[in-house]
Amino acid sequence: MTNIVTLTSDFGTKDYYVAEIKAAILGICPCAVIVDITHEIAKFNVQMGSFALASATPYFPEGSVHVAIVDPGVGTSRRSIAIKTRKNFFVGPDNGLLIFAAEKHRIIRIHEITNLHYMLPEPSSTFHGRDVFAPIAAHLVNGVKIESFGPRISDVVKPNFAQARQKGKVIFGEVLHVDSFGNIITNIGQELLSKISLKSLVRIGLPSHDLKLKFCKTYGETLPSEPLALIGSHSLLEISVNQGSAADRYKIKSGDKIMVAAFENSVFN
Amino acid sequence: MTNIVTLTSDFGTKDYYVAEIKAAILGICPCAVIVDITHEIAKFNVQMGSFALASATPYFPEGSVHVAIVDPGVGTSRRSIAIKTRKNFFVGPDNGLLIFAAEKHRIIRIHEITNLHYMLPEPSSTFHGRDVFAPIAAHLVNGVKIESFGPRISDVVKPNFAQARQKGKVIFGEVLHVDSFGNIITNIGQELLSKISLKSLVRIGLPSHDLKLKFCKTYGETLPSEPLALIGSHSLLEISVNQGSAADRYKIKSGDKIMVAAFENSVFN
Amino acid sequence: MTNIVTLTSDFGTKDYYVAEIKAAILGICPCAVIVDITHEIAKFNVQMGSFALASATPYFPEGSVHVAIVDPGVGTSRRSIAIKTRKNFFVGPDNGLLIFAAEKHRIIRIHEITNLHYMLPEPSSTFHGRDVFAPIAAHLVNGVKIESFGPRISDVVKPNFAQARQKGKVIFGEVLHVDSFGNIITNIGQELLSKISLKSLVRIGLPSHDLKLKFCKTYGETLPSEPLALIGSHSLLEISVNQGSAADRYKIKSGDKIMVAAFENSVFN
Repeated sequence: MTNIVTLTSDFGTKDYYVAEIKAAILGICPCAVIVDITHEIAKFNVQMGSFALASATPYFPEGSVHVAIVDPGVGTSRRSIAIKTRKNFFVGPDNGLLIFAAEKHRIIRIHEITNLHYMLPEPSSTFHGRDVFAPIAAHLVNGVKIESFGPRISDVVKPNFAQARQKGKVIFGEVLHVDSFGNIITNIGQELLSKISLKSLVRIGLPSHDLKLKFCKTYGETLPSEPLALIGSHSLLEISVNQGSAADRYKIKSGDKIMVAAFENSVFN
Repeated sequence: MTNIVTLTSDFGTKDYYVAEIKAAILGICPCAVIVDITHEIAKFNVQMGSFALASATPYFPEGSVHVAIVDPGVGTSRRSIAIKTRKNFFVGPDNGLLIFAAEKHRIIRIHEITNLHYMLPEPSSTFHGRDVFAPIAAHLVNGVKIESFGPRISDVVKPNFAQARQKGKVIFGEVLHVDSFGNIITNIGQELLSKISLKSLVRIGLPSHDLKLKFCKTYGETLPSEPLALIGSHSLLEISVNQGSAADRYKIKSGDKIMVAAFENSVFN
Repeated sequence: MTNIVTLTSDFGTKDYYVAEIKAAILGICPCAVIVDITHEIAKFNVQMGSFALASATPYFPEGSVHVAIVDPGVGTSRRSIAIKTRKNFFVGPDNGLLIFAAEKHRIIRIHEITNLHYMLPEPSSTFHGRDVFAPIAAHLVNGVKIESFGPRISDVVKPNFAQARQKGKVIFGEVLHVDSFGNIITNIGQELLSKISLKSLVRIGLPSHDLKLKFCKTYGETLPSEPLALIGSHSLLEISVNQGSAADRYKIKSGDKIMVAAFENSVFN
């Protein structure tokens, strides 16, 4: 069993909120090893948080506890939940944020968090990250059973993410994330892509561009500032510019639609 | 006794200064658990640093050592100090930065830091964070007595913060902090507020707006993008917009004046 | 032997890449103490990364493992390397990034990283930070010998940094870094500077300004918003403005040329 607790949120690092969460964890579990996944999720953007969580958590050791807080509904009747999977734990709001990542690791059980005994005294109604999720995570690392936190539930809020789909020789997908390098990361996985038997060139339909790109294994097959398509480090199709920003060049943002075909098949446009 | 050292500064995270502070701590106390409160205090803004420190430190375990560095006077004759309170320790410049937080935890004694033996060799005159405060913090975690660092003093620089005050049925206060969500955090505490017996509506006087707001317990009582007043997670009055930025909407910044009354009493304006 | 691993990169903190690196380290070496030097190196700016690394690493304890990733050539034939010095270890790409810092600590041996056994399974060709450098660093902390990772090499890529030089009574140098305070840090070291016997005034030639500045030991010798020259906390000449930004005032950026002379000698301009 590891003692890792990870944190993913839209709190930013300018304020002292993240520090208060860490304080609450260390007060209950002094030996916790806390790792920030990111605190720069766009405010209230549950999908972006969900994607970050699903991307990063597979690399953490078995038994890690993943806390995520992108929580527009804090202080409403939305529930707080803890999830046990075959590999790890998730703690956060019941708004779809945790489910995409948790399902990757095979969910075993989900419990609503209702037991005040495992929260900070007098939990605020505006900062569950510190008053509810942090202490629950610390208790999980301490070995408290997930059953202790509240009743088992099965009707959690599901995320409503666009799935890429194939239609004949074209794949229709969406931009999941634009990273700080300007790489465009899509929701089109390697498996789906293999069904349209791409060769060395790929045709990409973006909202305002129709591109013919090299389909590469690595940046090294292109020259600096040359665009390319490749399977990125998370096994998803990415559009990049070697040492440049594809998002800037093509004016792409998260949520934009994307179509992909082998170059031979000019079936769209 | 815990082994936590927290850091609060205006250094930002672009440079390597914070890393050098951590290196200095770990070189003396390898088992220190270092937690960043924030390094994004506005440059040289002692009040903002003081507020962050006072907000976050109550959540840390007993025995924690809190280092803070917002230090326009580094290299002048301003003194370096270490403070022991009933709960924890503070280390930093004698410019008012530490006192607001330390007083919350009841100050037991304050010592000037003069003993070169506990600093890095040849301390620079421009980077006391690394050369003086970091090693002192590490020695405190190692169990060195605060008396060892230098003479006890009593004439420290006091912070000069605006206090909220009541005048009849109106409370006059100030904006302490605007967080990254755009929440407006005031210096008006719950106790003071209770003296004007607010009901469900509150009247708020801002420099350029006179607002009638719902006075809520939680965001859940409002609709998205609806403004509200509430007691925030630090027991201070906050003006917020549900899933939006109150600071942007009302063009408010830290330091702005604010007046509060029950809506029934339109005594100002 | 310490268990510190430091990270320096151009990844930023918005994405989850840094977290994946930390996960990979902790999965192999659960007791590693990971310290971020900075992740805000300008994208692909090897020189800026090299300078941050050389600045911060001297403050870390013996045995620390320093991972750095500013890697425009990832996925090309550029090699991955590990360096053992008299004091510590460096891991990263063979593009000059590590050498400036490593030479400060006296290089003992350099090995190319080729042994798949010490990488993550199926390393990607786009994210060596996570798949190659992180696991190598963790294995070093675990005590694996550097010889295990691959063949010893001697022909590494050297950084091509401008060296400051003296010509008569003038020193010709370059701006290495502008920090977040706006301090202008040059490549002119204390030793070189001593050769032109500066007194209380120094003449500084910048691209668009010819300045006469106080040459100070500390900010305390100037008034707020007064400019000065001083030997900074890394023993390099810095141009600063007391509680202000010298870079903004003089419109200076990293890479700009700079000339220095005693004021008495108006040999340039």
